[in-house]
Amino acid sequence: MKYISSNKNAFIKEVKSLKNRKYREAKNMYFIEGIRFVQEALKENIKPYKIFISEKLEGVKGGKEILKTINEKKLDYFVLPHKLFKEISDTDNPQGILAQIEMKKYSLEEMVNENNFLVVLDAIQDPGNMGTIIRTADAAGATGVVLSEGCVDVYNPKVLRSTMGSVFHVPIYNSKDILKDLKYFKEKKIMICASHLEGETAYFNLENVDNVAIVIGNEARGIRDDIKDISDVLVKIPMKGRAESLNASIAAGLLIFEIMRKRI
Amino acid sequence: MKYISSNKNAFIKEVKSLKNRKYREAKNMYFIEGIRFVQEALKENIKPYKIFISEKLEGVKGGKEILKTINEKKLDYFVLPHKLFKEISDTDNPQGILAQIEMKKYSLEEMVNENNFLVVLDAIQDPGNMGTIIRTADAAGATGVVLSEGCVDVYNPKVLRSTMGSVFHVPIYNSKDILKDLKYFKEKKIMICASHLEGETAYFNLENVDNVAIVIGNEARGIRDDIKDISDVLVKIPMKGRAESLNASIAAGLLIFEIMRKRI
Repeated sequence: MKYISSNKNAFIKEVKSLKNRKYREAKNMYFIEGIRFVQEALKENIKPYKIFISEKLEGVKGGKEILKTINEKKLDYFVLPHKLFKEISDTDNPQGILAQIEMKKYSLEEMVNENNFLVVLDAIQDPGNMGTIIRTADAAGATGVVLSEGCVDVYNPKVLRSTMGSVFHVPIYNSKDILKDLKYFKEKKIMICASHLEGETAYFNLENVDNVAIVIGNEARGIRDDIKDISDVLVKIPMKGRAESLNASIAAGLLIFEIMRKRI
Repeated sequence: MKYISSNKNAFIKEVKSLKNRKYREAKNMYFIEGIRFVQEALKENIKPYKIFISEKLEGVKGGKEILKTINEKKLDYFVLPHKLFKEISDTDNPQGILAQIEMKKYSLEEMVNENNFLVVLDAIQDPGNMGTIIRTADAAGATGVVLSEGCVDVYNPKVLRSTMGSVFHVPIYNSKDILKDLKYFKEKKIMICASHLEGETAYFNLENVDNVAIVIGNEARGIRDDIKDISDVLVKIPMKGRAESLNASIAAGLLIFEIMRKRI
């Protein structure tokens, strides 16, 4: 345990810089916050690169317990005055614990196995939507989540919060060329199902989903045309009411759980 | 058309006060913002109590079209300098149109018909969740949404934005005593289905849903015990993955669309 009191400290400067996607990518690092989230990381045997703790953490519900876990795991940590902690935090009322973590990178090959259940996001922009979709994919036992080049950053603090820890459970792959990667999936006999308003197959009529990738499109424009063109099935969600479309995470949830039900 | 240049103007003060729930309820008024949202209200033949327009609206995409609609409908409006418009707006980059609208109130009796498909929210706290659930209920043709006493205000600007206009399509009832109202539904032979982690009926095995109310619980604590006790069916959403629970709007989406599929 070491005490840091100045915001000129190099570690403080580094963790603050991770609020910015560019620095996260350059350093291959991100941070998570809050007792429950850090507890989840430790449960998954993630060894944080650094842990920052506010002087106030002990007084917060669950604070003593997580300090005990950290000590049991013999992890080092920094203690900060609460005022300084608030500078590094991304939330208005931080609980007082933040862990800086190295990104876990997967290769495209590692994302593929024999019975894939992949969830592909095409330029999802809303952090809450992305986090919720990752949480839902995890709940349904999806084998991986693939993010196209135009997506919001999965390591954005708001995305991470919405995943509720699922970011540690399900492999996530950042594609640099989603069209190329989808073609690779097709070579591996993975059926590409894209959710599309013009789809001809109702999602509950989908068949043979033991090796499948479902693609969810951008909130405003839907699926990209070139992705639509290489998809094996265009899936629609029939609606009986008056809303013109569904929220992207709701559409994803319906498809993901339907596929879960149909896989043995 | 009248021009307002001062933030001391009584109409400006009034619309600003509507950012606060207490004033919304006292005045029975709320406001919506943005070209698409106001266009949707006008399409539904809602006559706004007042319309406020920024001097900049004409230069915004779609601005001229909505001004034309407003003039065709012979609606009166106020024009404001953009700086003053930003004071009344709830968004950081307003498009420049805001409509003050009278709340439409339904009685409990009006919420009930012969073949109900009601969505009941028990203390939903997150504005995005509530808005998304209302949008999803609308998409599935639900006959109404009932909000318990502990819910976030449906006229909160963030909730309204997330409904994407569905707030005008589906009747919404603010309950003052949800337990009493659920008992009234039971008297009317409406089956009360509550989503619950301990539920014994998988949601896809639900039957006889031609007269049904589904209850979605609070994001953190789930369904209230007294609601659980009077429910006819406790429904669970089986999960094969590792996430412990689903986001409330995803759970609602799965139940709502399953019921839609099972209704003729």
